[in-house]
Amino acid sequence: MRRSVIGGAKRTTTTCLFLLNHAHHRSLLPPLHHRLDSSSSSSSSSATALLLLLRRLSSSSAASSPSPPNMPNPVSVQSINPKVLKCEYAVRGEIVILAQRLQEELKAKPGSLPFDEILYCNIGNPQSLGQLPITFFREVLALCDHPAILDKAEAQGLFRFTISNALSDSCLSYASADSIKRARQILDQIPGRATGAYSHSQGIKGLRDTITAGIEARDGFPANPNDLFLTDGASPAVHMMMQLLIGSEKDGLLCPIPQYPLYSASIALHGGSLVPYYLDEETGWGLEVSELKKQLKEARSKGITVKALVVINPGNPTGQVLAEENQRAIVEFCKQEGLVLLADEVYQENVYVPEKKFHSFKKVARSMGYGDNDLCLVSFQSVSKGYHGECGKRGGYMEVTGFSPEVREQIYKLASVNLCSNISGQILASLVMSPPKAFILSLSLSLFVNDFLLKVGDESYESYSAEKDGILKSLARRAKTLEDAFKSLEGITCNKAEGAMYLFPCIKLPEKAIKAAEAAKTAPDLFYCRRLLNATGVVVVPGSGFGQVPGTWHFRCTILPQEDKIPAIVSRLTAFHKSFMDEYRN
Amino acid sequence: MRRSVIGGAKRTTTTCLFLLNHAHHRSLLPPLHHRLDSSSSSSSSSATALLLLLRRLSSSSAASSPSPPNMPNPVSVQSINPKVLKCEYAVRGEIVILAQRLQEELKAKPGSLPFDEILYCNIGNPQSLGQLPITFFREVLALCDHPAILDKAEAQGLFRFTISNALSDSCLSYASADSIKRARQILDQIPGRATGAYSHSQGIKGLRDTITAGIEARDGFPANPNDLFLTDGASPAVHMMMQLLIGSEKDGLLCPIPQYPLYSASIALHGGSLVPYYLDEETGWGLEVSELKKQLKEARSKGITVKALVVINPGNPTGQVLAEENQRAIVEFCKQEGLVLLADEVYQENVYVPEKKFHSFKKVARSMGYGDNDLCLVSFQSVSKGYHGECGKRGGYMEVTGFSPEVREQIYKLASVNLCSNISGQILASLVMSPPKAFILSLSLSLFVNDFLLKVGDESYESYSAEKDGILKSLARRAKTLEDAFKSLEGITCNKAEGAMYLFPCIKLPEKAIKAAEAAKTAPDLFYCRRLLNATGVVVVPGSGFGQVPGTWHFRCTILPQEDKIPAIVSRLTAFHKSFMDEYRN
Repeated sequence: MRRSVIGGAKRTTTTCLFLLNHAHHRSLLPPLHHRLDSSSSSSSSSATALLLLLRRLSSSSAASSPSPPNMPNPVSVQSINPKVLKCEYAVRGEIVILAQRLQEELKAKPGSLPFDEILYCNIGNPQSLGQLPITFFREVLALCDHPAILDKAEAQGLFRFTISNALSDSCLSYASADSIKRARQILDQIPGRATGAYSHSQGIKGLRDTITAGIEARDGFPANPNDLFLTDGASPAVHMMMQLLIGSEKDGLLCPIPQYPLYSASIALHGGSLVPYYLDEETGWGLEVSELKKQLKEARSKGITVKALVVINPGNPTGQVLAEENQRAIVEFCKQEGLVLLADEVYQENVYVPEKKFHSFKKVARSMGYGDNDLCLVSFQSVSKGYHGECGKRGGYMEVTGFSPEVREQIYKLASVNLCSNISGQILASLVMSPPKAFILSLSLSLFVNDFLLKVGDESYESYSAEKDGILKSLARRAKTLEDAFKSLEGITCNKAEGAMYLFPCIKLPEKAIKAAEAAKTAPDLFYCRRLLNATGVVVVPGSGFGQVPGTWHFRCTILPQEDKIPAIVSRLTAFHKSFMDEYRN
Repeated sequence: MRRSVIGGAKRTTTTCLFLLNHAHHRSLLPPLHHRLDSSSSSSSSSATALLLLLRRLSSSSAASSPSPPNMPNPVSVQSINPKVLKCEYAVRGEIVILAQRLQEELKAKPGSLPFDEILYCNIGNPQSLGQLPITFFREVLALCDHPAILDKAEAQGLFRFTISNALSDSCLSYASADSIKRARQILDQIPGRATGAYSHSQGIKGLRDTITAGIEARDGFPANPNDLFLTDGASPAVHMMMQLLIGSEKDGLLCPIPQYPLYSASIALHGGSLVPYYLDEETGWGLEVSELKKQLKEARSKGITVKALVVINPGNPTGQVLAEENQRAIVEFCKQEGLVLLADEVYQENVYVPEKKFHSFKKVARSMGYGDNDLCLVSFQSVSKGYHGECGKRGGYMEVTGFSPEVREQIYKLASVNLCSNISGQILASLVMSPPKAFILSLSLSLFVNDFLLKVGDESYESYSAEKDGILKSLARRAKTLEDAFKSLEGITCNKAEGAMYLFPCIKLPEKAIKAAEAAKTAPDLFYCRRLLNATGVVVVPGSGFGQVPGTWHFRCTILPQEDKIPAIVSRLTAFHKSFMDEYRN
């Protein structure tokens, strides 16, 4: 079976001497010969390189070796799980693959395309576009990754340590390096301080306690650490609930259209039925309970058992923030119809308009008097969104309330099969839900101390707060600039991004453009987005990836490029759109 | 709908003043009154605490509120996905839940149990039992988490920086603080140095390049970064392949018995059929191809389409390391029968006996002359095992070779639905596959320099190597001590742990014990393990969680407790076993 070329190559290595490659370090020694020691790792050695080269050359012959006559083809597109084939995920789909190709082209041949960089507006990935992480969060994470730092005297030199003008010991204690303190607290919450151990499958208990306190502070209603399941971002949590709820194609979930395609993808993967309800673009992507009722009735008439309602608030891709009154009606609907309410609340920190405020569905339900036994409610949260945008850390949680102990046990089992989520992500989830705090002292305090002490709090509070506000205010400005730009274009209407990270403009495409798309066997919105990308390097996702009222065309554009890039995006978009319309205007 | 108690509570908060709680910081100021500022986070404030207390009191009434008459119960054990109910995962099952309860009891009432601590021998989680992380890995991770450290002069003071007695610039460059250098390299591999951004769904390209080089160095055969999918530990990778391969219960996978229950759990969750093949305990858990052929034939005769063969090498829970000849026969079998070979190789660094060596299945297949097009092969690797045992970091990868481009596209889609794996885990996977290196210079080198320079390499190499060897040698000693202890017990036989992290002793239970278990409606091995836990605090997993030849009884015991605990475990186990046998001997 052994091929002689390979056998020969093997013999070569074990006997011959190779030149030590000194190219990477300035050596005063003359070039030396060395023997490859079999006990040492050898990835960079010339010996391995030569052997690999020989094997690469031989691999083409191996690859073309005739298969035994009766070998069945083990895996083909026809033989894999058909649910996988059905699943689609546009956020990383065709347009993005094209963008990556163009980026490689630009790198290989600069100047070969009509633009000099790709501007990724396809995905809510702030740090990939230059947003910096929140310093406090990263300080704590680094300390937890390598606790030995904490025990070194230098630690305080490394992390910022500014003792403010303080009046007393009390104030001094406020002014200590709180990232160090927080890291110590977190390590003390982890059994054995072992950040490298699997945790409880729901996440480290102490961190869940911290998150619980954060939820209580946010909502003003009790929360329970046993209701929390910490996960590698919100996506695995959504999959877990889909896996739990969907037994067959007869099990349906009410999902908004447009929706974040994680939902359609996950429902397809688990073999369920997506029961669409349409958000009303006319009323700023309003969620009408009458529409929910209509779609539920229709689905039931088809024999679908509708298990749950998915609500994304603030909306993705639509950017609307639900009014509390609207949320009450939704809660009432789920309660009456016996539906699980799956509340995607990952954009809870991303609200940009003063007239709207985020309310968690749990808070709304509890304020209506509905307790834990009245409603099955799952709230998804992630460290990837908000002002911090820590997508790469894969942290998040779901708060699961209202399920029977028996069903909860099944959810726990699902969590335990993957052992636990990553500990850095767990730590970050706890930080996001309990960031540095300010305690505003006023009234009687002002009798005792000077004005400059009115605001005391965690040492990091000021810088943390400046970083947070800077990002959120900038996002609001970017949302407004892009919205205005879209609205100024012929045939484009665009709702406000009240929250989240996206605009979802509607394009009235000319008949001629639709015909051209049909001729190219492409959906008209994909046709537009592809043309836009090829002309400008701007990457947006066609509306068909999210769902839209048939016959309407949209695209999703993030508000995430840094502010200095926005003017270029606007001018490129504007110029492209004009020429596109000139080409296809009826 | 609003309950009056709750409404009342709400009114209270917005108007009343609360005492500032100074318990946590030494204050020189007299107790002050402060107003809860609505813009500040308030988790720790008395205002929220009081409100929450009121709401906790009221929640009992809310919980008992009568449901609307026609509300269907949205989720019950009867209505959830039946595949979830079917799935079992013993490693975190009944025994572990009992252990956690006993631990709480010990905490609440020290001295109330016949032991003073729980000794978790149920799961391969080294750092939870006191194993320390490898310093070099954690230094690099901390630097990548907070790159600002790199730019501070103090960084070199913080991380160890020993300039060895060096002869030349060349040696000086070797002696630089390589964790800093490595962190810089890694950051340069990440687009925009953004460790907080979603990466490519297969993982950061530069890190995949590093891992590729590591695989090539290990195997001596070419690897391809495009074949790698970086994942949050090996478990999600296994799930991804199960999702791909299993379309219905007619799709089967050949799995070893005993097996790591991730496989049975994942096959159950995805609705496929586990086709068992038995490892031969008599020959040290030998894997016989004749057994594979027999079981394949039988499954096919039942109409099962067998898609893949799962092999765990080194074995879990069985600890055997396959001989290369055996691996060749397995490759040949998969090739002939058109099966995907799913190779669980997460224990590749854990081999404890000089007569055995780990060979990856890819190396074996390539050395047989089989190229990329000849065999569908997936190799799973994890950062959780090896000498590092970084379970909490959730890093790992699968190397996917031999699939058609169309099927590969589907695997990519599955990866992309969850966006990407966590970046710290990705970084760690690259470190594990390219740890600090020594370059052994000899022959002509010895003509030029003194003996003490014969070994030069990355600065961390010596300490890294000492940490690694210390752990692996200790594991080997622990494995031997426990094996000998088990073998000395009446009615217990135990194969050697050649590799991995487990022993899987066989207990010949007396008839009387089996009857007692039956009377308690418990599997006999679970009965034994529960009695062991209640008597000694030692947690092991019953063999029935892994599968075993019917009528035989086993348990899995990790070799991971620190060495100073091993004598206590041995003496407790021995005393328990003696008294158990005395109680039930025929």
